[in-house]
Amino acid sequence: MFCCWSMISCLPEADRIWEGSVIVKGSVFIAASLDGFIARENGDIDWLTRFEGGGTGEDYGFKAFLDTVDVLVMGRHTFEKVVMFHPWPYGIKPVVVLGTSSVQVPETLSHVVTWKSGNPTDIVRELSEQGAKHLYIDGGKTIQGFLNAGLIQRMTITRIPVLLGRGIPLFGPTNRDVTLRCMDTRQYTNGLVQSTYEVI
Amino acid sequence: MFCCWSMISCLPEADRIWEGSVIVKGSVFIAASLDGFIARENGDIDWLTRFEGGGTGEDYGFKAFLDTVDVLVMGRHTFEKVVMFHPWPYGIKPVVVLGTSSVQVPETLSHVVTWKSGNPTDIVRELSEQGAKHLYIDGGKTIQGFLNAGLIQRMTITRIPVLLGRGIPLFGPTNRDVTLRCMDTRQYTNGLVQSTYEVI
Repeated sequence: MFCCWSMISCLPEADRIWEGSVIVKGSVFIAASLDGFIARENGDIDWLTRFEGGGTGEDYGFKAFLDTVDVLVMGRHTFEKVVMFHPWPYGIKPVVVLGTSSVQVPETLSHVVTWKSGNPTDIVRELSEQGAKHLYIDGGKTIQGFLNAGLIQRMTITRIPVLLGRGIPLFGPTNRDVTLRCMDTRQYTNGLVQSTYEVI
Repeated sequence: MFCCWSMISCLPEADRIWEGSVIVKGSVFIAASLDGFIARENGDIDWLTRFEGGGTGEDYGFKAFLDTVDVLVMGRHTFEKVVMFHPWPYGIKPVVVLGTSSVQVPETLSHVVTWKSGNPTDIVRELSEQGAKHLYIDGGKTIQGFLNAGLIQRMTITRIPVLLGRGIPLFGPTNRDVTLRCMDTRQYTNGLVQSTYEVI
């Protein structure tokens, strides 16, 4: 806990929530099948991992994005998936796992992973008060909850050229039309198409 | 009926179905919201029409695509939507409307629009036997049915930068993973992102 969370607490107060206006920025950086799934129904991402760099070192801009992030916020299911990854993909970045009951965190990750429960607005307020300026929001339900609460400002979506037919959807019902501005699009040589959108 | 269908019947026999192998090509050319809907639940496409060229004449490659098409195949709901468009967007291209019961076709379109019922394979076989080489498959359920029957070879999907939250989905359950190859991607200045995929 110490090194990462104390670092965040030292960020400038000016970027914290101020009179109900959330200054902290929420971003999504995620891959999805062409039909909008982020995993199969059982959580498998085999269809995705076959595009992982292929020894070229290509990370589709992930490290550059992660370098701008103060805290990752993800749902329990996403955490239970990524905790199986070796190596742990987020280094010493603080990670908040959301869930209504406490989450089993391996001892090796106890200095970076914290469990929290609460609605998106309260979570963002709390992290902002701790000094976080840029949150990386991950996982289908978590992204949907933060979007509906108006707490996502930017989304980078990398489309994988496959139709899965069923699975865990990236998006879900919204409480309004969410209009976006496409900032940038890039097609990789292996057919992945990455677009970055700002929520407007 | 006469002018268009007789034109198709004169196409070379070499391109017809041969011993069960479908030589005719099926293409999709469609716009979808970022969350994968082609219309609202009630069929409305107000969120889409606001991107229509804006007086610039930009048609996102539609006319060039349509020029390569022999026959359009669409479901009844799509037809009931496009029949309200003025002018009729497909000129003298033959249009097949699929449905289990006959479709009301205005007298002004009776020379280009035909109703057919049948499964995708039989429809393609019949049109191929009439000389059609390139079919434009339109409408959510129709696209899904033709995809699952392996009768779509190319898809051009234009992503509109909006999340609708609910509506009529472009894609649906598939009977297998459908792997694609991204041939080309273009971001328009108004933020529409158009990618063309080949089914492999």
